[in-house]
Parts: sequence; C-alpha cells; structure tokens
Amino acid sequence: MKIAVIGVGNVGGVIAPRWAQAGHEISLGVRDPQADKVRAVIEACGGRAQATSVGEAAAGAEVVVLATPFPATRDAVAACGDLAGKTVIDCTNPLTADLRGLSVGFDDSGAEQVAAWAAGASVVKALSITGAGNMADPAYADGAASMFICGDDDAAKAVAGELCGAFGFDIVDCGPLSSARLLEPLALLWISLAYKWGNGADIAFRLMRR
Amino acid sequence: MKIAVIGVGNVGGVIAPRWAQAGHEISLGVRDPQADKVRAVIEACGGRAQATSVGEAAAGAEVVVLATPFPATRDAVAACGDLAGKTVIDCTNPLTADLRGLSVGFDDSGAEQVAAWAAGASVVKALSITGAGNMADPAYADGAASMFICGDDDAAKAVAGELCGAFGFDIVDCGPLSSARLLEPLALLWISLAYKWGNGADIAFRLMRR
Repeated sequence: MKIAVIGVGNVGGVIAPRWAQAGHEISLGVRDPQADKVRAVIEACGGRAQATSVGEAAAGAEVVVLATPFPATRDAVAACGDLAGKTVIDCTNPLTADLRGLSVGFDDSGAEQVAAWAAGASVVKALSITGAGNMADPAYADGAASMFICGDDDAAKAVAGELCGAFGFDIVDCGPLSSARLLEPLALLWISLAYKWGNGADIAFRLMRR
Repeated sequence: MKIAVIGVGNVGGVIAPRWAQAGHEISLGVRDPQADKVRAVIEACGGRAQATSVGEAAAGAEVVVLATPFPATRDAVAACGDLAGKTVIDCTNPLTADLRGLSVGFDDSGAEQVAAWAAGASVVKALSITGAGNMADPAYADGAASMFICGDDDAAKAVAGELCGAFGFDIVDCGPLSSARLLEPLALLWISLAYKWGNGADIAFRLMRR
C-alpha cells in the first residue's frame, strides 16, 4: 500500500520503518524533508520511503496516518488537502499541555474532531493507546499487546487492523469512531502508568479471553 | 476485617461470599434484608454474613464497599451515616441510563463525587473496571486479570489492594482518586466490549510488563 505518515516523532519514527520493511511504500509528510530526524527515518526505511510536503505525501497515498501532536493535527489535516475517499489512521491523543488530562470530553473525542476536519475521509483511531516502544515490539511473555481500534467505516477499519496486525498487535475492534471517547482516556492511562506512576514504558494492555 | 457491602447486585453478590470465605465478617447493607436475593447471598457467604440496613451495616464496619448502581449511590452514602475515618471502596460507575456513555466528564469522576458525599472517608476506586464474573475468577490462561485502583489515601489503597488481591487480581496502582476519570471510561470500554461489540463477558484487561 501507499502510506503517508504525517509526522516523524516517536510514533512516526517507529511505524514508518516497520511498514517499509513489510513492503509498503512510505511517504513521510514533513515540514523540512532535509531535517536530521527525517533523514534518519528514511534510512531506517531502507530506501522504501521518501520525504516530502504533507500535501504531496497525502495526495499520493491510499492511507494517511496522522502521527502528529494533537495541537498540530488540525493544521496537518488542512495541509493534507482533499482526503475524501482515503483511509485516515488517527494516532493522536488530545492531551493537555501538561500531559495530565484530556482536552476533549466524553461528548466528543479528538478522533471525531479529526473526522470533521478530514471531510469525506474514513477515519480510524489506531496506534494511539500505547507507547512507540510497544509498536516496535508488541510481543510480551503473556501474549501480544492489544491494539484497540475504532472507526465508522468497516473497510477502513479492516485496513487499519491489517496494518497494525503486521506489527504483531492483537487487534480489538471497539466499534464506531465515537469509541475514541474511551480509547483516548486509555491512552492517558498508559501514559500516566508509564511516566507518572513509576512503571516505565515497558508495559502494555492486553485484552485476555477465556 | 469487618466489611459492609452496600448493594447485592452482580458485584455485591460475588464479592461478599468471596470475602466471607476468606474469613472476613460481612454485613450486607440492603433495603430489604428478607429479599430472596439477599438470602441467597447470605447463604453463599456460609454463615459469615448478616443482612441489615445500610446505616447499621456501615456503622459497624471498618471498610464500606459501595456496590450500588451509580444513580442510587448518593442516597446510599447518605444512608451510611458518618463515614469519617473509614475506608470506602467505590465499585460504582457513572454510566448513563442507556449504558452508552458516562455521566461525569474528564474534569470530575463518580469517585470524586462519592468522596465529596462521604465526608472524612478515605475513598478508593476499585472493583469497577471489569465484570462480576472476573471477580469470581480473575485467572486467565495468559495471567491474572488486572485490577486498576486509585485513591488519595495510601493506607486505604493498601487495604483495597489487599482485598482485591485476595480475589486473585493483579493490582495496578493508578495514583490519586482523580485517576477515576480514566478508570471509569475503562469500565465503559469493558462493558461495551463485552455486551455491545460481541465479545461476551469472558474478557479481561491485563497490564503486561516486560
């Protein structure tokens, strides 16, 4: 698949090389294609990636992955241009600046705002509820870390599930996009457990089944 | 310990017998001590339980466990009388009537409201994020189900952790009581996964560690 990864922070820097290694064609949508961290990610992609503007990356892709800080996400979506008919994977979380809370409440979610901004796109919330280290390696002794995803378009959700499953995650379908109201707090719980309550980032949620 | 369990629904009906079997002295705080379901729970407690009014049950207990529907919780707390100095375990969730949402948002939680109602008590949020079946048996093939708990009083949290640990749960300390803002959405996620998105109730969250 042709995948545009918008943003090369912790998350973008892990998922782009993994998908490149799986044979997908990656365009990194960035402000400065010459920046050191962008070149490092391209190198990690082993030649199966290029860096370009956000608009060009999105225009040429079937799947657009938002791996931006939430406050930058609205502008990033606008820079993507026309997203109608594309699958958009929203990895962002509407955290407050101090990372202690969420800026969007139970009657809305960051993902639903993204969907409103990305008119006509099929938005899936995914790769949001755990750390980048778990995206690099979701295998634990007890089993695979779960990736909770949600979205209103089943076909787009299947694509996102396949792309996350390729990392080794156990995919858990959490229904419609409005379930992001539950997944965004779960992301903040992971962040708080890892960085605030002393567990470190080598922790992951798993949905067990009897 | 002397434990008052307020409410004998799904949750109260499971935890009271388990604690009774573990040697604790249980008082069921109920409206009608003669009701069939109350007598069934007492029988399951094997003689180590009595049923009485909410006020009497709470008055004689060191630990008061709120296992009420959230809309009935404020009245239940009032009926408990003076809770100052007691450990209160809040198992409730502020679900909307259709079980599709939460009635309290990210700037507050049901647990914090309970703490405001239960003046002077040390409230711990616990036994809220999973189903009663998992309280009866938290052992899964992958490991023990996790019980995420939070509270502002470390001593009370230790008591709650011990009481939940006795069920076989893996206890995960989620910091202060305000973390209930994250655990209450987690409860709704479990409920939705179980009953709305087709997984059934034989599912449980586990926090894995590398």
